Amino acid sequence: MKTVVIQGLGFVGLAMATVVANAVDAKGNPLYNVIGVDLPMNQARIDQINLGNLPFKNEDETFPVQLKKAVLEYKNLLASTDENWYKKADIVVVDIQLDIKKRSLGNAKDCYLEKDAFIKAIHTLGKHIKQDCLVLVETTVAPGFSRKVVKPALDKEFMERGIDVVANPPRIAHSYERVMPGKEYLASIRSYPRTFSGFDKISAEMAREFLENVLEVDKFPLREEKSTETSELAKVMENSYRAVNIALVNEWTLLAEKMEVNIFDVIEGIKKRKTHNNMLYPGLGVGGYCLTKDTLLAYWSGINFYDENLDLPMTIKGININDTMPWHTYDLIKEKFHEDKFKTILLGVSYREDVGDTRYAPAEKLYTKLDNDGLDVVVHDPYVDEWPELPDANFIHQITDLKEYDCVVLGVKHNIYLNLTADQLIQATKPQTLIVDANNILDDEKILALLKSGRDVVGVGKGHIARMKRELV
Amino acid sequence: MKTVVIQGLGFVGLAMATVVANAVDAKGNPLYNVIGVDLPMNQARIDQINLGNLPFKNEDETFPVQLKKAVLEYKNLLASTDENWYKKADIVVVDIQLDIKKRSLGNAKDCYLEKDAFIKAIHTLGKHIKQDCLVLVETTVAPGFSRKVVKPALDKEFMERGIDVVANPPRIAHSYERVMPGKEYLASIRSYPRTFSGFDKISAEMAREFLENVLEVDKFPLREEKSTETSELAKVMENSYRAVNIALVNEWTLLAEKMEVNIFDVIEGIKKRKTHNNMLYPGLGVGGYCLTKDTLLAYWSGINFYDENLDLPMTIKGININDTMPWHTYDLIKEKFHEDKFKTILLGVSYREDVGDTRYAPAEKLYTKLDNDGLDVVVHDPYVDEWPELPDANFIHQITDLKEYDCVVLGVKHNIYLNLTADQLIQATKPQTLIVDANNILDDEKILALLKSGRDVVGVGKGHIARMKRELV
Repeated sequence: MKTVVIQGLGFVGLAMATVVANAVDAKGNPLYNVIGVDLPMNQARIDQINLGNLPFKNEDETFPVQLKKAVLEYKNLLASTDENWYKKADIVVVDIQLDIKKRSLGNAKDCYLEKDAFIKAIHTLGKHIKQDCLVLVETTVAPGFSRKVVKPALDKEFMERGIDVVANPPRIAHSYERVMPGKEYLASIRSYPRTFSGFDKISAEMAREFLENVLEVDKFPLREEKSTETSELAKVMENSYRAVNIALVNEWTLLAEKMEVNIFDVIEGIKKRKTHNNMLYPGLGVGGYCLTKDTLLAYWSGINFYDENLDLPMTIKGININDTMPWHTYDLIKEKFHEDKFKTILLGVSYREDVGDTRYAPAEKLYTKLDNDGLDVVVHDPYVDEWPELPDANFIHQITDLKEYDCVVLGVKHNIYLNLTADQLIQATKPQTLIVDANNILDDEKILALLKSGRDVVGVGKGHIARMKRELV
Repeated sequence: MKTVVIQGLGFVGLAMATVVANAVDAKGNPLYNVIGVDLPMNQARIDQINLGNLPFKNEDETFPVQLKKAVLEYKNLLASTDENWYKKADIVVVDIQLDIKKRSLGNAKDCYLEKDAFIKAIHTLGKHIKQDCLVLVETTVAPGFSRKVVKPALDKEFMERGIDVVANPPRIAHSYERVMPGKEYLASIRSYPRTFSGFDKISAEMAREFLENVLEVDKFPLREEKSTETSELAKVMENSYRAVNIALVNEWTLLAEKMEVNIFDVIEGIKKRKTHNNMLYPGLGVGGYCLTKDTLLAYWSGINFYDENLDLPMTIKGININDTMPWHTYDLIKEKFHEDKFKTILLGVSYREDVGDTRYAPAEKLYTKLDNDGLDVVVHDPYVDEWPELPDANFIHQITDLKEYDCVVLGVKHNIYLNLTADQLIQATKPQTLIVDANNILDDEKILALLKSGRDVVGVGKGHIARMKRELV
């Protein structure tokens, strides 16, 4: 049985380890021995994994089941801090985070790449792996990284070990995941289109064989790109496409509101054309680990690897629009309350509907802005017990009585909020409460009932509410 | 039989007149008497129409057939310069052009709306139409125009005629076409999703009845929007979505080229995701009447009707990127020839594949730039005999011998160019000719054959050609 070492046991690394360990042959026998290696600082996580427990919350019910099965039944999945495992690897899958951080919101170009940990991790591999071990980079990297960072690091360590890297070049491939938080987390790795590329022919063939063994390639055929640059660029451009398309609707939202237009109607209508059905919707903002930063990896590569004058001005403008979008909801709130003190409850803090992932969530930006004004903000989210980015936030766990709040912000399209009836909202709140629909959660019928009950309502992209109010008078 | 007057017999107006005149009841009898009215300056066009002839080139073979049928067989289509026809109208369809013009390329905000002719046309209607005539605006307008321009103009003329516009307000609706040059020109009007909106209930109902009679609504259900602003905004946002998505790939093209990546591979790969299948491709640039300007109509409305501080910075950045994209092909050419004199042939001048429409074609911008350098440029296009925007351009009609040219630019994806074999290109050109693939017309096999034959090849978004050249050495 070949040995696969997963380097880095974060959200993606552990999911990938679980998928690889659950890959079986025609007879149902596991194909790989899987070792997950992480740093000693993550010892608690490692201990949990080795007990067969998922060490973090995840909405995919199959994830803990498959993890437990691999650890306790197949016994082919082990987590460790011991770098010596790399020596045993036939394949290493690199899932070390490569973060690019913004110094401020609205000025995304002012960013820095936290590359040291990633580079160090590759050197560690170079010190230990067999000459013919495949290093499969799954991390979302700055495009060009395989050639300009991974290859030189492995070459250097190989040469120090006396290996002739011309005769025996390190085997490097790149393949990107398209993982999506939610109930289909593992399926979004295993049963979803996958692109890969090899640094050379033999690396590409090894990557293909591995991916064919672990992914559902009969339904989702692999796509091979002709260079590692091609697949690296594809990953960040794919997410940039999405980020720009959200920025587009965010940008037009202000115009729609001034025109007293419901922009969701506009978008619904446009999406009727197949050529336009990828359109997205405006909201509180854009969060998550990918759409907020992947463009910057390309920007970083452009100026650092290829041409210092390269720029992606429109795409980066889009990132800035998305990053500052929560301030539009802030403005909608402040328009009503001016300079007064008021109490706000924020319903939903995760970055996406029906998940508990709060990374770079727009709710964080809105919360911070209100909090910085010295205002009281309380939060609720059925999927979040603790908010790692804002540990001091005050959570409530019940939304049946919200009468102490002057402002209720519907921030995330969690089902529980979509299912709230107008009556429930009226029962829960006091008259004159400002209800802010930041994510198209209320339909017009509910809005009308709320207005009639004496609540005030505004919404991101919902300019038509002004017309509704006039018609009520 | 009700009378429909089409105001303005341009590309859209005459097509709409033809579609309306060909609308028949269950027994095959025409439903409407159709009069097309245009200005006396277009008398020649009007005479042609009344002979049953299409007065301009069009790639849709059904267009002249249906026009002739209406004029000569049904005898329910007449063109005229006589404004008195408006008096007879039950419905007027407004197809008067509303242009917004840029003063320079790359600075789209510096634009001006040529609104006088449109406003004058609406006043003309107000002077003549019956009180209960529906004015259906089909022109792509600056959003808000129905309320802020059409309504006041009609009100004013009605009041001067002594009509009480509170009791009998003018009937106004808006509905936008999605016409697409090419072989399916009429079908893109008749058999395609259609959105409309009425200024009030009765106007909306009249518009619905009319559109149901003339369009294939059983297959392509009508969509009604709640305000004229909503459908006006939808039209320009729909085209802005497309313009921004081309700008995105145009913007990333330079990075891909520097990375020696074929961006068409990248995009093909990304499009495998259904959520990303609207992605478009880079090329010589973006042309045509809509994608180049519709964003500016929204920008104009924003600052003139709603809030002088409104802006659409990302979308306008996209327009600027698209407008200046032909200069990238210019740069690719100049990189090879530096300061020398050289002769160029430009294959394809229309704005789109397999049509003869040259409005705002990117080829015009490339041609002008080379021409301004004092360079010889000759052009070829199977669909274009005369280039209205550049009447002095020197056309050739045969491309079997191109040996006098140092540079051959493949500019438009016409089938005739896609079908050129490498052998044909080698036969036609002299060695060392620079062949510029500005629109992904050559596949890698052809590029390799051309390189081997001693031709040089570069291409927009085709960074991988640099690798191919290295591998050949």
